[in-house]
Amino acid sequence: MSNIFCKVTDQIAFVTLSNPGKLNALDVSMWTELREQFNILSLNEDLRCIILNGADGNFAAGADIEEFATVRNNISNGMFYHNNTVALALQAISDCRHPVIAAIEGICVGGGLEIACSCDIRISTPTARFGIPVNRLGFPLAPEELRGLIELTGKAVALEIVLEGRVFDALEAKDKGLLHRLSDNVPDEALTTALRIAKGAPMAARINKQLVKRLTASSAPLSEDEAHQVFAFLESNDYREGVASFLGKRSPQFTGK
Amino acid sequence: MSNIFCKVTDQIAFVTLSNPGKLNALDVSMWTELREQFNILSLNEDLRCIILNGADGNFAAGADIEEFATVRNNISNGMFYHNNTVALALQAISDCRHPVIAAIEGICVGGGLEIACSCDIRISTPTARFGIPVNRLGFPLAPEELRGLIELTGKAVALEIVLEGRVFDALEAKDKGLLHRLSDNVPDEALTTALRIAKGAPMAARINKQLVKRLTASSAPLSEDEAHQVFAFLESNDYREGVASFLGKRSPQFTGK
Amino acid sequence: MSNIFCKVTDQIAFVTLSNPGKLNALDVSMWTELREQFNILSLNEDLRCIILNGADGNFAAGADIEEFATVRNNISNGMFYHNNTVALALQAISDCRHPVIAAIEGICVGGGLEIACSCDIRISTPTARFGIPVNRLGFPLAPEELRGLIELTGKAVALEIVLEGRVFDALEAKDKGLLHRLSDNVPDEALTTALRIAKGAPMAARINKQLVKRLTASSAPLSEDEAHQVFAFLESNDYREGVASFLGKRSPQFTGK
Repeated sequence: MSNIFCKVTDQIAFVTLSNPGKLNALDVSMWTELREQFNILSLNEDLRCIILNGADGNFAAGADIEEFATVRNNISNGMFYHNNTVALALQAISDCRHPVIAAIEGICVGGGLEIACSCDIRISTPTARFGIPVNRLGFPLAPEELRGLIELTGKAVALEIVLEGRVFDALEAKDKGLLHRLSDNVPDEALTTALRIAKGAPMAARINKQLVKRLTASSAPLSEDEAHQVFAFLESNDYREGVASFLGKRSPQFTGK
Repeated sequence: MSNIFCKVTDQIAFVTLSNPGKLNALDVSMWTELREQFNILSLNEDLRCIILNGADGNFAAGADIEEFATVRNNISNGMFYHNNTVALALQAISDCRHPVIAAIEGICVGGGLEIACSCDIRISTPTARFGIPVNRLGFPLAPEELRGLIELTGKAVALEIVLEGRVFDALEAKDKGLLHRLSDNVPDEALTTALRIAKGAPMAARINKQLVKRLTASSAPLSEDEAHQVFAFLESNDYREGVASFLGKRSPQFTGK
Repeated sequence: MSNIFCKVTDQIAFVTLSNPGKLNALDVSMWTELREQFNILSLNEDLRCIILNGADGNFAAGADIEEFATVRNNISNGMFYHNNTVALALQAISDCRHPVIAAIEGICVGGGLEIACSCDIRISTPTARFGIPVNRLGFPLAPEELRGLIELTGKAVALEIVLEGRVFDALEAKDKGLLHRLSDNVPDEALTTALRIAKGAPMAARINKQLVKRLTASSAPLSEDEAHQVFAFLESNDYREGVASFLGKRSPQFTGK
């Protein structure tokens, strides 16, 4: 069963994404639980740092595509899915008062990469795999999720990632600005980093995190009209073809309609 | 004769900068034709990707300096040259609904680099040469052209490039954020990339491209007063000396006047 | 005695940070003199470039912590210290009409790194050391100083630097976007670069520098309320503990209060 596991030790909390047999792909219940867990951890005054990882050797494979037929198949429920379910979970991580470290192994694509991008520090094994191949599924990246990517990589690399939809290795991910460092022992390096952060003054960490966010507040959010246009693809043939071909394990035939 | 060649195959278009004997330096007729070609290609619903390159082993050497005595020798025609002739061509590339790949070999400096910066993905041979050595010609980079550079490299590297005016190799250009990747076979790698992009849903590519642009809209355009000040150099002694010394193949003597 | 030395040659000025026995840590008199020297140099029409370095093999170790008990021990004098003493000195460097090169050797941390970040080009020995370990002293980075860091490294790396408070080497500093280039002979490379800049038209350099600044003007300055909150740490126990433990050469015991 899909789950978000949470273990709190003395000053460090461990949050683990788990969806056995699906490379920890996130379904709606996981997005919701992720948000709730981070909201609770944020209030814990004793914490100094949170480590976020995935179960069984993978970070996360993205959203659970099988759910799309019910939770994201028209403009109205698609906007709710992205603006509420996904965006609020990502925001709970980036708004969390404690520093959050993503400890990445295995697959880290789509929604998994978006979760990593919402953390403050990203550490990965050299063998992990990254990318946002949603163009093959017939859809663009949702605006607020794209914004999180651009904030890390800049405009040019973000464009390359979404236009090509290529899956690439950790060395390229580091070069693209997606990772802070590589390590052959990610759990160890993540813990060492968390303990290093825990040695600083907690108030300094919180203010530093808030200030960086405040000073990098970027362009205005989309207007309702803009958002409607951007999500109109949800009622296109190519979107349905993309998801159907993925679930049917065949190549999509896109027509531009 | 100077020209912009355009060849449309099935789903991929090839646009080629050509000015034989001048390293494909762009004169006014080429800037104008470049804009028109991209405006036409943008309307072609069958296209999936455009590859932009230069003829005869070079991308482009910048603007055609010989024209400056007539098309850019006072504030009034200089502002028209930059805000209309050049800026509208660059904008036609970045506004084009289809993804655009710059396939770079040989010389890619000044206006040539600006054209490359307007594309979505930049692929180069290791032997190509980059830079914006216009300070040696007695003038600063025009504001909207500088903005395109900053969006790729950030503030610090953009400053280095324009203040030093150094010409550097492709490895350094990659390190500076100007290139996505190097390849010993640029035509092949560009085509492979174009075909990879063509496999995604066209609507996803278009929305992704528009959204990245929307979410990175940066500082306000210059006011008329600001622009006038910035282009006032066009009536300075150092500007005339810079262009004259370049055409006369001698070192400029700048005085700060 | 602490000092800012200034030597003007033909077209190049050399400014040197000096505080013997304190790794050139900056006290209030040095911040003030730094501002005054750059204001004077900015008016010198004959100059083409300024090289800023540190005496005796180090750039600068940051602010002089021993002064904090008198000049920065409550919200009111702390805000004056940062918004006037420090910020105006950094601004005098970045607003200086001439290009400024930081020539970095040895220690370049805290306020020293902030000074380097205010320069236009940063050249360093491979053996120099970088970082902002102020979290160990019980305080966050001041907002306008954090902004200068973010403008060079982006959001993700700035967060890593202030949250971890780690001191790192020049290779990592280059990888993080803090440096333009490494050299085994920094004085030589800085002078070569200054002379290269001096070969361009002075008006081009000044307009390029101003334009980059104009086009990268980022988020609004903090409101008075925001600033007050951000500086409230100055009256916390952890801040006093951080400074006291540093001066007493012992480990701090932080409580989050």
